Amino acid sequence: MPAAISLEECRALAFEALSNAGVSRANADAMADHITRAEADACKSHGLFRLPGYVASVKSGAADPGAEPDVVDMAPGLVSVDGRRGFAPLAIARGRTLLAEKARSQGVACMAIRNAFNFAALWPDIEPLAEQGLVAFTFVNSRSFMAPAGGTEALFGTNPMAFACPRGAGRAPMIFDQASAATARGELQIAARDGHAVAPGAGLGPDGKPTTDPAEILKGVQLPFGGYKGSSIALMVELMTGGLSGGNFGHESAADYKHDGGPSNVAQSFIAIDPVRLAGPGFPAHVEELFERLLSNGEARLPGDRRLAARARTGEEGITVEDTLYATVRELAGRT
Amino acid sequence: MPAAISLEECRALAFEALSNAGVSRANADAMADHITRAEADACKSHGLFRLPGYVASVKSGAADPGAEPDVVDMAPGLVSVDGRRGFAPLAIARGRTLLAEKARSQGVACMAIRNAFNFAALWPDIEPLAEQGLVAFTFVNSRSFMAPAGGTEALFGTNPMAFACPRGAGRAPMIFDQASAATARGELQIAARDGHAVAPGAGLGPDGKPTTDPAEILKGVQLPFGGYKGSSIALMVELMTGGLSGGNFGHESAADYKHDGGPSNVAQSFIAIDPVRLAGPGFPAHVEELFERLLSNGEARLPGDRRLAARARTGEEGITVEDTLYATVRELAGRT
Repeated sequence: MPAAISLEECRALAFEALSNAGVSRANADAMADHITRAEADACKSHGLFRLPGYVASVKSGAADPGAEPDVVDMAPGLVSVDGRRGFAPLAIARGRTLLAEKARSQGVACMAIRNAFNFAALWPDIEPLAEQGLVAFTFVNSRSFMAPAGGTEALFGTNPMAFACPRGAGRAPMIFDQASAATARGELQIAARDGHAVAPGAGLGPDGKPTTDPAEILKGVQLPFGGYKGSSIALMVELMTGGLSGGNFGHESAADYKHDGGPSNVAQSFIAIDPVRLAGPGFPAHVEELFERLLSNGEARLPGDRRLAARARTGEEGITVEDTLYATVRELAGRT
Repeated sequence: MPAAISLEECRALAFEALSNAGVSRANADAMADHITRAEADACKSHGLFRLPGYVASVKSGAADPGAEPDVVDMAPGLVSVDGRRGFAPLAIARGRTLLAEKARSQGVACMAIRNAFNFAALWPDIEPLAEQGLVAFTFVNSRSFMAPAGGTEALFGTNPMAFACPRGAGRAPMIFDQASAATARGELQIAARDGHAVAPGAGLGPDGKPTTDPAEILKGVQLPFGGYKGSSIALMVELMTGGLSGGNFGHESAADYKHDGGPSNVAQSFIAIDPVRLAGPGFPAHVEELFERLLSNGEARLPGDRRLAARARTGEEGITVEDTLYATVRELAGRT
């Protein structure tokens, strides 16, 4: 029987577990918020499930649990954040206020974050921007897990990107958040555990040959979605993260990694644009018309709709946490 | 025997053909330049091959051959261009100067173009930005040809995007330029003509069922590359074009179309970022190290490398033009 808890309890558990591990109040707040938002939207793989990893990276000495990110105003449209080997959620939250301010005053702004430990979901990072009426992009890399199209060795991270578009009339923004890898790493791990094959195109074995055996892919390399086109997207994400921030590319992040089961020291960037200053006040209605057409087209769905449906449910009903994880989290929180 | 001509002759032929059709000097210059750059890089499908379509859209009255684009400085980081029903190359060239200026002074800038007829390649639009040291994105839609993932009816255009990263030491920028569609429309047309099947995933027949018969797909709808992830990219391109500019979405462009074989009235946007102001002066060397690793990884290649190899060749040797097309172009240019 999974445990049923409220979102408040989820936040409290996460905060206490992080505090117990020595994470500063500001960092634990930002991280607990991120974890709780993932749980609220039923993104289980980025919720409490990540907590033991965060704690591990404090214990290994990889991440600095008390880091105060350094937010620098680099130009009228540019924000630079040095995460100072801390966790990404605080670096993002601290920089985002200035980013949004610049996007409103200049019409567009860009933020690059380096030297921050991250393996969280991306959509919570840009949803606050879209809630202020901004169109937003974010890109983050990870340590190398993926070969470029045509390659056989890990070079790119799984390299997700997310894109958010504000909607009128009090609706939550449309956000997609997707890895450049054909298959999520967690999915490969679960398939390997359960002995299932994965779809062709997910990766190569250690021999450099295509395989559908997830255990072989985990020993070899993952591949980008959609062949060379997805590989271009993954390359773009590397350039927009390690490149633009001057931080780690995927291979540099891999070289830095302490193999502690926690996040890696990676880079991230954001672009925020005020659409109404370009498209005029008709922007939300125009976009809504496109979304309506999409939703009446066969079985097509808007990205993120399952997340938002979960959010509507968990706000009232709370969430469930798988038994073993719940025990682990309670232990980390000193509740046993 | 295809005709062998110099790039200068290609440019002269294109300019004369457009001038004969009543295209103004400024527009014909920008369009001939675009066509010649495509030919120089062996992008045959976007070179002289497009000339009869441009002329057709003048004859049908769809496009205004003498349009003077209206470039407006909307905010410190924003440029808006109304193409005034003219051709896109001049609208882009006119707006790009201000865009680059803003990117340099603000660190990042964004430009949206609406009401411009476009079916050209994208990489020539951002290469001049990257040659000035800017990282650049561009997005353009087309009239509806593609269903969203899960859908059965055309909603999105083929919706290409391009991304450019400057390189140091006098190297041409790395640029990828790729449609959101699984298969290029021209490829489907050629496969249909030759009676070849296309790869699974390219599209649906008019019955809404997946097919590998290109003739059926041309009567039905194309599909995005990489399933729902490519579909998200296509949606992002619609939002960044018709959405951000207040111009046409793909379905609006389709409703406007005069079925003259020429380009459609579409929208485009650009983002330009000064990477050195964020990453510091080490940016080019850092990026070059990533590229070197990529190039030593199996058979992996840098996007655009075939284009640049062609460019090195055609600068000295000129280009070849298929016989029938050459005759058509000469006739349009009044050379017969």
